[in-house]
Parts: sequence; C-alpha cells; structure tokens
Amino acid sequence: MSSLVGSAWLFDVDGTLVDSNYLHVMAWLHAFATLDRPVPAWRIHRDIGMDATELLEDLLGEDAEALGAAAKAAHAHAYNDTTHLLKPLPGSRELIRYLTGHGAAVVLATSAPPEELTVLRRVLDVDDVLTAVTNADDVDTAKPDPSIVKIAIDRSGRPAERALFIGDAIWDMRAAKTAGIDRIGVLSGGISDVELRAAGAREVFADPAALLSSLDRPHKAA
Amino acid sequence: MSSLVGSAWLFDVDGTLVDSNYLHVMAWLHAFATLDRPVPAWRIHRDIGMDATELLEDLLGEDAEALGAAAKAAHAHAYNDTTHLLKPLPGSRELIRYLTGHGAAVVLATSAPPEELTVLRRVLDVDDVLTAVTNADDVDTAKPDPSIVKIAIDRSGRPAERALFIGDAIWDMRAAKTAGIDRIGVLSGGISDVELRAAGAREVFADPAALLSSLDRPHKAA
Repeated sequence: MSSLVGSAWLFDVDGTLVDSNYLHVMAWLHAFATLDRPVPAWRIHRDIGMDATELLEDLLGEDAEALGAAAKAAHAHAYNDTTHLLKPLPGSRELIRYLTGHGAAVVLATSAPPEELTVLRRVLDVDDVLTAVTNADDVDTAKPDPSIVKIAIDRSGRPAERALFIGDAIWDMRAAKTAGIDRIGVLSGGISDVELRAAGAREVFADPAALLSSLDRPHKAA
Repeated sequence: MSSLVGSAWLFDVDGTLVDSNYLHVMAWLHAFATLDRPVPAWRIHRDIGMDATELLEDLLGEDAEALGAAAKAAHAHAYNDTTHLLKPLPGSRELIRYLTGHGAAVVLATSAPPEELTVLRRVLDVDDVLTAVTNADDVDTAKPDPSIVKIAIDRSGRPAERALFIGDAIWDMRAAKTAGIDRIGVLSGGISDVELRAAGAREVFADPAALLSSLDRPHKAA
C-alpha cells in the first residue's frame, strides 16, 4: 500500500459500512407482499445496491412504473420500523478515522435517499472527518451508472488515479470499473468473493475491520 | 437423467422449497440485539441451515451455552411475527408433484423444530404426496452431521445409490457428501453457485422451477 496522503477513499454505505442490506431485503419483501406481487428474497438481495428505480424495474418488469411509487412508500415504511437494529459493520468507524488520520480524503458515495442517509450517518458517527457525501438527489440515475462515482471523486478534491472505491455489491464494482476507479470488495453485504471479483474487485475483504488490518500491518512492521 | 422410478429425492426445506432464509436472518438479528450481542447479518446468513445449537456456538462462541435458550426463544418469537410472509419458492410444489407422479419418493429432510415445520408444510401444501418427513427431534445433532440425511434415506425406503439431496446451504452439501449421497444445490437460499459447488454440489440451479425445467426437457423432446 502506497502512502495514504493525497488518496481518496470512496465508500458505499449500505452493506459496506452499515449492516443494513438484510433490513432492506426484508423491507422490500414486505412491500412486494403488500402489493400482492411477491418476489423471492434472494433475488431482492442480489439487487440491493442498485438505485431503487432500477431495482423495481428489474424485479417487477413492466409493472414497475405503475407500482413503483407504492412499492417505495411501503419499503420506506417497513424499513423505518427496523432501523433501531442498524449497527456499523465491524471496523467501519476505525477504518475511516485511520484513513483520514493518515492524510486520505474519505467520501460516502451512495445513492441512498437523503432521509435514509441521515439515519446511516447517525449510526456511523464519523461526520467530523468526512470530506464529502453524495446521495440519491445528486444524480438522475445512480449506480450501476458511474455518475455517482464521478461526483464522489470530484468532491474528494483528489485525482481519479489516487481514488479507490470500496463496496459490497456487484453494482458498486461495475460502476467504479466503468468510471475507471480502482476497486475493493467487502463480503459484509452478503455477496460472495467470486461474484465481487467477477464484477471487477481487485481485492476482497470480509469487512472494514479486515481491510483496516491489511493497511495497518506494514505500518506496524516498520 | 435416468428414470425417476425407484429414486429418492431428499429435500431441505428452508431456502430450498420455502422462501424462509431471510426471515430467519432477521429473526436472529432481532434475537442477538435483544441479548445485546449483535452479530453482522451476513455471518448469520451463512450459518442458516445449520442446527440452531451449532449456529449459536459458531456465532456466540463460549457465550452460546449461557445465552442459547434465550436466543432461541427470542428468535422463535421474532420469526413467528413474520411467517405471514412465507411463500413456496417458484416451482416447489410443481417439482415435488412431478417427481412423485413419475415414481420417485420425496422426503423432507430438515432439522427444523417441529413447530416451524408445521408452518412450512402448510405453506408448501404437498403433504398428500410425501413419503416421509424428518425434523429436529429425529437427531441429537443435525446437519452438518450427516445423520439427518441417513434417517431421510431410511424413511424413503429406497437404496442410497438412488438417492439425491437437494439443498441451498453449504451445510446441506457437506452433510449429504459425508453420507455418500449425490447432491444438487439451489441458489434460492442466497448462497452462491461457486460456494455450493465447493461444498460438494454436482449441479446448481436457480430454484426448484429451474430444476424442474431441466427434468422436463428430455420428456418434452421425446
């Protein structure tokens, strides 16, 4: 690992820094049941990390337009009922504080709706060291469209060649690859090592704690 | 595919025939939060399919004995609150009725507690064609210990050489492999193709519907 000074670390949030993916799966499961359009949970899980509009198009097909608004409202309602269960993933806070303490810029690069992001930021409790944050309002089409990644790089104030994207979803890896940004995957969203590498991850760690250990090791040895 | 007459099909239920895995993940997440011992959801997910006692040993370590009974009670309570969301996975009923209609014996080979299994059987609605069922009371230690698989073979009344185990978990594949039984994996529990093959799956299908299509094809062509 070269020096962290001058580098930019762009983090997905859901499933990467906060343990929220399975809450979203359940919330969509509730929403689709309410609409009497059940979708198997594993298919929902594999679409977590996509923009909500694209997730609905993938899972509901041509009914997405008619049912989309009701589905999003039902999902938001069900998700809000479970946010007391949200926890940072192991090592999230420590990794971010380590990076910023060593000269890296850290950006939360997410397409979560603003109201969800407010809750996630409260759970993470690292706002005092963040360089920037993106949310769903920043782009018309979020990941896998790479524009959210490009906005995050711009806001980092660092060159793209020194930027790294960290995410748990296939969509994260694809979006960062399309934007030409180096990529690290984490297993903490529930997607497997092989799938993340196939989507473009250069390295995969269990969670932020494992990624932090890998950074810390050479420094300790020095 | 050789003739189905005389064959035995042993099915895991959770995540294989009924879309219950993500409900179990949420129920354990609730239970661990209640006990103030949070565990990341993806680690819970990867242990679904193990016997509850072994799952607790893996996730809570040396505290499993002290907290196990309270954790199981909290899980059962949270799970029961969500069972109205349970659905058969696509093709489950059709596959089982196709198999029994063509001379195969079908056994539900699960280590689910009896009260959970009652609900799962109601959701599946195939009791009239089943040869046998196992549950948690049938063995002291369930999967990955192979004894539940052996009990299921015995109850099928068919020779082990004609038996096939179908499951969604790494633990299913390992248990059937240890018992010397041929194995097919399904993705509908949320575990990836590569992981299921590494654990011993000879073939992997998306869900029971995809498995049924693969059986039906030669007959249609004939």
